[in-house]
Amino acid sequence: MRGGEERAGERLRVLGIDPGTAVTGWGVVERRGGAFVHLAHGTIATARGDALPRKLIAIHGMLAQRCAQWTPHTLALEKSFVGRNVQSAFRLGEVRGVAMLVAAALDLPVAEYSPAEVKLAVTGTGGADKRQVARAVARDLALVATSVRADAADALAIAICHLQSARMRQLAGAPR
Amino acid sequence: MRGGEERAGERLRVLGIDPGTAVTGWGVVERRGGAFVHLAHGTIATARGDALPRKLIAIHGMLAQRCAQWTPHTLALEKSFVGRNVQSAFRLGEVRGVAMLVAAALDLPVAEYSPAEVKLAVTGTGGADKRQVARAVARDLALVATSVRADAADALAIAICHLQSARMRQLAGAPR
Repeated sequence: MRGGEERAGERLRVLGIDPGTAVTGWGVVERRGGAFVHLAHGTIATARGDALPRKLIAIHGMLAQRCAQWTPHTLALEKSFVGRNVQSAFRLGEVRGVAMLVAAALDLPVAEYSPAEVKLAVTGTGGADKRQVARAVARDLALVATSVRADAADALAIAICHLQSARMRQLAGAPR
Repeated sequence: MRGGEERAGERLRVLGIDPGTAVTGWGVVERRGGAFVHLAHGTIATARGDALPRKLIAIHGMLAQRCAQWTPHTLALEKSFVGRNVQSAFRLGEVRGVAMLVAAALDLPVAEYSPAEVKLAVTGTGGADKRQVARAVARDLALVATSVRADAADALAIAICHLQSARMRQLAGAPR
């Protein structure tokens, strides 16, 4: 963890990532005082016919570009895997590994949250569905809900979850 | 695929990788005519206390070094995941993603084989256990069995599996 990430009043900028082999969502959110400010979001789609290593290096390059452009203090990812099969976990792990490499190369901390933590943070309930998450994200960040693709909305939700979590740790005065 | 990997009589050198977050095995085997020649093997152990991104970047650096030193034509990996849980698949996927990035950055093809294919290739039975695999690898490569750690033996087995498979494709005249 970078020293001072949690200092009161300081700006804290997070790149949230929703990893996927076909589509990886990303979103940058900054905390300014008590407000969460949307800076950017988007999706990285890989070419369907490409071999997996090609897809991974494309994702790696795009995420590295996003980090260079948006200079986040932290990368936030979902940490666990629910409701899909082992092969899906395998595929998802591959993209997560790539995202973690991008962070480690830039010496950025990686924060991880469970899907339930992310849903709880943005909707107030751990059992929210994708549409509820997207609506809550759009409301929190003053975006037009229909303008945000689901993968990018999830990435923004992960970023918001980290900022809320960081604020709570700060309020609690807890060491990270 | 590099052109000519399969040409008769040509040397074909493979880096086999058995990925793991704690220990990643690797082994380099070369086919010279009809013979499989052991060049090197080893394990990459990460520091237990390190965060996962640190471990992954260490594995990435070490695998890139091995590629620079041994200039393989192909990286060979196990492609599927059996007998462990979803979280293990997740972890394993992360290391696989890192290995694939190393290959893609060097424009090396990645070959993938199932655990049963690897066991069948080296022992003649898809249901062999780890000790049988290690013994068969040692015999095929004229190594002292006890000198090869299990993770490295698995990596060498994956490399042998690729060389056998490449030979069979060559004999069959099949396109890859």
